[in-house]
Amino acid sequence: MDHNYCVIISGGIGSRFWPKSTADHPKQFQDVTGVGQSLLQQTYRRMLGITSSDKIYVLTHKDYVQKVADQIDVPRENILPEPVRRNTAPCIAYACIKIYQRDPKASVFVAPSDHFIAPEEKFISEVQSALDYVARYPSLLTFGIRPTHPSTGYGYIRFGDAVSESLHRVVNFTEKPPADLAQKFLLQGDYLWNSGMFAWSAKTLLEEVASFLPELYDVLNEGLSDINTPREQAYIDDHFHRCPNISIDHGVMEKSSKIVVKPADFTWSDIGTWNSVYDISPKKNLENVCNVPANFYRAHRNIISLNDQKKIAVIQGLDDFIVAESQEALLICHRDQEQEVKSFLKDITQGR
Amino acid sequence: MDHNYCVIISGGIGSRFWPKSTADHPKQFQDVTGVGQSLLQQTYRRMLGITSSDKIYVLTHKDYVQKVADQIDVPRENILPEPVRRNTAPCIAYACIKIYQRDPKASVFVAPSDHFIAPEEKFISEVQSALDYVARYPSLLTFGIRPTHPSTGYGYIRFGDAVSESLHRVVNFTEKPPADLAQKFLLQGDYLWNSGMFAWSAKTLLEEVASFLPELYDVLNEGLSDINTPREQAYIDDHFHRCPNISIDHGVMEKSSKIVVKPADFTWSDIGTWNSVYDISPKKNLENVCNVPANFYRAHRNIISLNDQKKIAVIQGLDDFIVAESQEALLICHRDQEQEVKSFLKDITQGR
Repeated sequence: MDHNYCVIISGGIGSRFWPKSTADHPKQFQDVTGVGQSLLQQTYRRMLGITSSDKIYVLTHKDYVQKVADQIDVPRENILPEPVRRNTAPCIAYACIKIYQRDPKASVFVAPSDHFIAPEEKFISEVQSALDYVARYPSLLTFGIRPTHPSTGYGYIRFGDAVSESLHRVVNFTEKPPADLAQKFLLQGDYLWNSGMFAWSAKTLLEEVASFLPELYDVLNEGLSDINTPREQAYIDDHFHRCPNISIDHGVMEKSSKIVVKPADFTWSDIGTWNSVYDISPKKNLENVCNVPANFYRAHRNIISLNDQKKIAVIQGLDDFIVAESQEALLICHRDQEQEVKSFLKDITQGR
Repeated sequence: MDHNYCVIISGGIGSRFWPKSTADHPKQFQDVTGVGQSLLQQTYRRMLGITSSDKIYVLTHKDYVQKVADQIDVPRENILPEPVRRNTAPCIAYACIKIYQRDPKASVFVAPSDHFIAPEEKFISEVQSALDYVARYPSLLTFGIRPTHPSTGYGYIRFGDAVSESLHRVVNFTEKPPADLAQKFLLQGDYLWNSGMFAWSAKTLLEEVASFLPELYDVLNEGLSDINTPREQAYIDDHFHRCPNISIDHGVMEKSSKIVVKPADFTWSDIGTWNSVYDISPKKNLENVCNVPANFYRAHRNIISLNDQKKIAVIQGLDDFIVAESQEALLICHRDQEQEVKSFLKDITQGR
């Protein structure tokens, strides 16, 4: 019997991807890449290359439990609803304590539900070798992505000496840097993007949580006798709000001395924004990306994503724009300004 | 009893106004100006200020008879369906021969169904005085519009000496001129736009048709014993295709010596294009025109016309664009290029 487990984090709203992604229908549940499966379904399919469905857990917001259950055939008890949003550290620790109780030898791969990854075989073999490593060494392993451009939207990991053929020590983390610093990191060559994908043994993760986030550890540890019993959900519902609202990166990774980074050898995108979808999508006429039949006249490098895919788009004289439609809204925004999308949404929800 | 009649021409497709206007649902049947009535309904309402509904006729394509009947309460026998499109001369002559047979003293005002006119009182009094004039003098009276800009989309009428307080002789007609000529006309001050609105006695119009378009006159005259009988429609269906395909301007107005022009003293637009709708519409934030709730960020002078008026538009970094949506299509086109809209539609219908 192997001890490999997967945890899919699927509770986000995807607000940088508005209006396609909304709180009611976040992007992980949508077929963003036009392949016939939602991002969650693709993630789940990749996980099935690593372990069996009964060892795959999905962390999500309570409002999305039914959406998850509708889309993938993971056992219902493996869908873990968060009653309130508390960033990644609490939900990851919750999943790990649950898995640890079931299997103290568990190695756990943690990944968001909404990433683009190719080719899958490469991904699966790298995750498997990462899980093998953390089963043998008490490490927190994070997957780093070789930067392809000076993105200011990702965290960066500076790597140091090799600890094995494909693993490095971590020198430090830098949160989303300004453009000049991102450019420097890119040229320097010893920086990777922080992918938000991790591997560790449940035991090591919980030890590090106990060290660096004791208030989180205590909330979960107090409920230990309820975890994996019919009382578990009631305990979580009643106590999860007491967890600190903090990411696993800030709360644990940036503090632990057990961090190693594995430069990923597959193509990756977090599909966090419209530009990232543009980057991974096949280009049509004049380098446009478009999900409907379209004619372009002196219009270049746009991404057009309409709600009704039977519609025809006719685009004249437009360069480098996002044209994105949902049932509720139409967004037209220059691709250079996509970081503003979140604030546009905020203006609307605040009635401005 | 007065002898005033109105004829509304309502058979066009409005292809410069695509995708809002289509052959299935042309713009005259739509509430383009957002006032709660279609352009046809507004035209009909104005005509009711001139005469009673039984003396108002509507010329339309046979496919649109039901649309006309659904929108206005003109008597059904006053809706005259063209079996084939033959431009304006044949249908106008047909309406006039029918009206003449009913009332040989008829004065007829002819106008398209899709114009914007304000204020209505001014319009009505000018039309009434025009009808009074043509009842007394055997003239073909055309309404001219004082140019507000050097449009290359209208025909121009050069006017000469005054023949009464508000009427002038016509020196000549110039079809849609190139930009430099239009500029010259504007500065010269003795040019008016050809509005496509006319007044004449049915008798005078038919005499001039007999002189300048005898082949058209013959087709209608041969059916005279069927007109205003149950056999009328069958006669028109069988013979209308024999009429020459020509406009009343080319076929009669440019040749007749009985032309006078009345400079209109009301605000007018033919609402032929997106820019003309922009011009007559109330401007929102940053001079944008928009039919839905919208937020604009560094986006100026756009016209946004969405299909679903409950949708929210968020527009960033876009200046001077048309964003127009129908159930079938989304058009984004620079306002300077609106003359291309017709060719975009052609490309689509030809499958290019």
